[in-house]
Amino acid sequence: MSKQELEVIGRTRECCPGLLAAPLDEDQATELAKVFKALGDPVRLRLLSMIASRAGGEVCVCDLTPAFDLSQPTISHHLKLLKQAGLIDSERRGTWVYYRLLPEMTDRLAGILTRPAGQPLPPPVESPAGAAS
Amino acid sequence: MSKQELEVIGRTRECCPGLLAAPLDEDQATELAKVFKALGDPVRLRLLSMIASRAGGEVCVCDLTPAFDLSQPTISHHLKLLKQAGLIDSERRGTWVYYRLLPEMTDRLAGILTRPAGQPLPPPVESPAGAAS
Repeated sequence: MSKQELEVIGRTRECCPGLLAAPLDEDQATELAKVFKALGDPVRLRLLSMIASRAGGEVCVCDLTPAFDLSQPTISHHLKLLKQAGLIDSERRGTWVYYRLLPEMTDRLAGILTRPAGQPLPPPVESPAGAAS
Repeated sequence: MSKQELEVIGRTRECCPGLLAAPLDEDQATELAKVFKALGDPVRLRLLSMIASRAGGEVCVCDLTPAFDLSQPTISHHLKLLKQAGLIDSERRGTWVYYRLLPEMTDRLAGILTRPAGQPLPPPVESPAGAAS
């Protein structure tokens, strides 16, 4: 089994049964925080959405860089962080690198942020009388 | 209209029609990145999951702090960041502050991470022949 395969398996083990269903343990939280941290940057979010929404399924880095007022090494660094988080994959073909979404990860994030079926909305926090501004 | 109401409206305007459906613009990405950044920390993720999964719908800060090897001011700081991101709300009652999930925000994040209906999986990136390790 290749190192890459092992790494993917490590990433896709059942890390996060549902953020809203039960308290996460430390290992689950550490693993999940890395992915959210990768999403916690406007440039990386825009890159991810450009890649994810591309009709053909993949985007050349040469089509991503012109959308930003940033150097190509900076864009490549952001793409590397998205890739390390398991959100995108890449392939070099000739001069350029092509990126595509790994929808398994965004599907998983959407799943853990979804309320368990049948979970009611919590009651609203009541403001103390006279506290309204 | 109170300042608080205005702030809530500002937060809940249509910032994110779908990360995977179309490229985000800069303003959308900046707003959304703040929320993901708040989630990009293991302690904050554990706090959020402890609050979200509490059956009664709210948790006293006095029940959150003992789960961590951190000072109460540090825990309060993390809770403040979650609150600023629109993920939780709080109410002081007597000595203690009580926290509850704002499920509208987690619902929204789940929504923007969900693939548009009918969007097929992108084709796998083919590895160049001989590139497998």
